[in-house]
Amino acid sequence: MSNGTAVEKASIIVMSGDMDKVMGAFIIANGAAAFDMKVTMFFTFWGIKAIQKGNLTGTSLMGKMLGVMNRGGLDAIGPSRLNMGGMGRWMFKKMMKKNNVMPLSALVKQAQEQGVRLIACDMSMNVMEIAKTDLIDGVEVGGVATFIAEASESKFSLFI
Amino acid sequence: MSNGTAVEKASIIVMSGDMDKVMGAFIIANGAAAFDMKVTMFFTFWGIKAIQKGNLTGTSLMGKMLGVMNRGGLDAIGPSRLNMGGMGRWMFKKMMKKNNVMPLSALVKQAQEQGVRLIACDMSMNVMEIAKTDLIDGVEVGGVATFIAEASESKFSLFI
Amino acid sequence: MSNGTAVEKASIIVMSGDMDKVMGAFIIANGAAAFDMKVTMFFTFWGIKAIQKGNLTGTSLMGKMLGVMNRGGLDAIGPSRLNMGGMGRWMFKKMMKKNNVMPLSALVKQAQEQGVRLIACDMSMNVMEIAKTDLIDGVEVGGVATFIAEASESKFSLFI
Repeated sequence: MSNGTAVEKASIIVMSGDMDKVMGAFIIANGAAAFDMKVTMFFTFWGIKAIQKGNLTGTSLMGKMLGVMNRGGLDAIGPSRLNMGGMGRWMFKKMMKKNNVMPLSALVKQAQEQGVRLIACDMSMNVMEIAKTDLIDGVEVGGVATFIAEASESKFSLFI
Repeated sequence: MSNGTAVEKASIIVMSGDMDKVMGAFIIANGAAAFDMKVTMFFTFWGIKAIQKGNLTGTSLMGKMLGVMNRGGLDAIGPSRLNMGGMGRWMFKKMMKKNNVMPLSALVKQAQEQGVRLIACDMSMNVMEIAKTDLIDGVEVGGVATFIAEASESKFSLFI
Repeated sequence: MSNGTAVEKASIIVMSGDMDKVMGAFIIANGAAAFDMKVTMFFTFWGIKAIQKGNLTGTSLMGKMLGVMNRGGLDAIGPSRLNMGGMGRWMFKKMMKKNNVMPLSALVKQAQEQGVRLIACDMSMNVMEIAKTDLIDGVEVGGVATFIAEASESKFSLFI
């Protein structure tokens, strides 16, 4: 898909923390990277969970409460519908495995191996009291200006 | 809006199965098609419901459970808020009728008549055990690569 | 980011009425405007709440019910998760204040001061029985064609 003169770009903001939407984001990102596009994913608010290690986060009482509710990182992410106390997540994982769909952790790993740029939103990290050490290796921290600069040069930009 | 030399494109991924979001997707798609844009809609996960016939789907126990919960196709879709056991859906339909807003089924028909390309995500169909015969006529089945190719050439791409 | 020959554009549809998503929309819009981009925000369905004065709206019984459920404008908006009867909203506001994140009302004001074009969807206003006088000053009323025209000329378009 490259025109031979410049690298084509794609940008994705991930604000959702729902398993199905986060998986969709990575499937699109990995697909675009497979077409030699330079993909940037910008994780904000609930989306940051997808690139967290899963440890408890937060220092203030409120930050810790948010950390407890949000703990587990991507292994604890449930779908946006039919979660039913974790059952939706279990069912989805089982059905995906049966159909050879990569689990979320493998999709994240594949994205990193393909050079997809993963950026955590600095403002969200401050508000939610998430430290850089709470994030998986290889993730950058950046601001909205970084996203806008990338999106302005992208063939397509998505908000997920 | 055409520059006289090439057809302008627009791409929309529909992952949501909420009535208001699906309607928004079709209103945008039909609007763009009215401007002579070549529009591709790519339906994935819950969004596939909008282009299903409404019959029960699934073969495995889990697939059937998902089919029961998701049955009815677009006639059974409720809004993302205020659904209140179907009342939000009824209220919305009544208010829309009073204000001459097309029902969802008419929006889908109009999209097809205007040449909007409707593609169901093959991976989602496998995971959710939805067969091609469960989809309304005229829908293609395709992969994420098809979406990325279209989005890369589009004037705008949206994730809904 | 301007190329010296033309103003660069960005377009954002806001259909969500969740505080976190609406804030994200304004943070992106204000960021893009700070880069001298010409930004258009198109508010539809639940998103219109973000540009309402907060008075009760609606004339029919159903319109009034929707008005009661939706009253308060942007000051009453809660996040998409962890709302817990308003507590999530209170917690978020407190954490954002501590971290010097602008409240939503200030983000809207900043957008208007930076020349971000705020458009309320006419079809949604009809269906939800919201009048132009229910909207904050400086908001335009427009149709989906206006959004499509702007999006077709935009460096990036987002659906939030």
